[in-house]
Amino acid sequence: MTKSLLKSIVLIVASSITILSCNNQKQDKMKTDDTVLTEIFLKGEKGSEDLFTGNAYNIGLVDADSTLTTAVGNVYFEPGARSNWHSHPAGQILIITDGVGYHQIEGKEIEIIKKGSVVKCPPNVRHWHGASADVGLQQLYIVPNTEKGIVNWNEAVTDEIYNSASKFQ
Amino acid sequence: MTKSLLKSIVLIVASSITILSCNNQKQDKMKTDDTVLTEIFLKGEKGSEDLFTGNAYNIGLVDADSTLTTAVGNVYFEPGARSNWHSHPAGQILIITDGVGYHQIEGKEIEIIKKGSVVKCPPNVRHWHGASADVGLQQLYIVPNTEKGIVNWNEAVTDEIYNSASKFQ
Repeated sequence: MTKSLLKSIVLIVASSITILSCNNQKQDKMKTDDTVLTEIFLKGEKGSEDLFTGNAYNIGLVDADSTLTTAVGNVYFEPGARSNWHSHPAGQILIITDGVGYHQIEGKEIEIIKKGSVVKCPPNVRHWHGASADVGLQQLYIVPNTEKGIVNWNEAVTDEIYNSASKFQ
Repeated sequence: MTKSLLKSIVLIVASSITILSCNNQKQDKMKTDDTVLTEIFLKGEKGSEDLFTGNAYNIGLVDADSTLTTAVGNVYFEPGARSNWHSHPAGQILIITDGVGYHQIEGKEIEIIKKGSVVKCPPNVRHWHGASADVGLQQLYIVPNTEKGIVNWNEAVTDEIYNSASKFQ
């Protein structure tokens, strides 16, 4: 092999490696974008295992007071994590800012919730909510009319119920 | 110039062009990421020029009703856009999900608000809010206790007041 041919081969290989690594970088970024959820707020504190199954992190954004009478916060649910059954004396609103999850009002079918979803739960109605099995959930909650109380916690959501959600996807 | 030298030069130039375009793509994406805001909801309807200066788009997420008594929506303010002065009979909460903007309660200094910011405005106090001059704002609003009324609109925010915000950045 002549020196010139060898030089040409080296440069062609170098160009190919550069082109390939350029493409791979773009693909890795897209793959990362698919699974990493947007974080708008600090993560907050891990929810008690008495109130949640799996890892859920809550940060309070607006504390209930006598003027605005509204509590607001964000919960990040890791995949598989969910709240226990619970109810709110004045109801609750959920705003989903990223990810995929489930919400169920007692007696009704599990609904799939995702980025952009808005959920309303009436007063004194038992419900639960959390992330899907594979993808986490970023969820804002709004509890209105807090002078009536904020939340009443009940039992954990069984795996049987939680796993049945997959049939709704 | 020999053929082999010419061939080498062509290949070096080709490699250089590939490497440079690869870097530029990464920079363009980063530049785009700096200025394109996350969209969680549909854009909604353009706000009336009687109520806003510049382009602001509102989508209602939760309509006021007698059960939850809370109105929730999202406003996307383009750079330079802001609401008129206005007040809420029961106050208002703002949750900023992306971008940079301004909020001012009458008589107080303009505050800079950005992704993750939480703003509380007391009942019957005049205020205005909107995007910064260069970057848009994605803003959720929560209006509690809607049985007292939702909003009372007033005059436009002057350029003099709006432009004075830049000194707080």
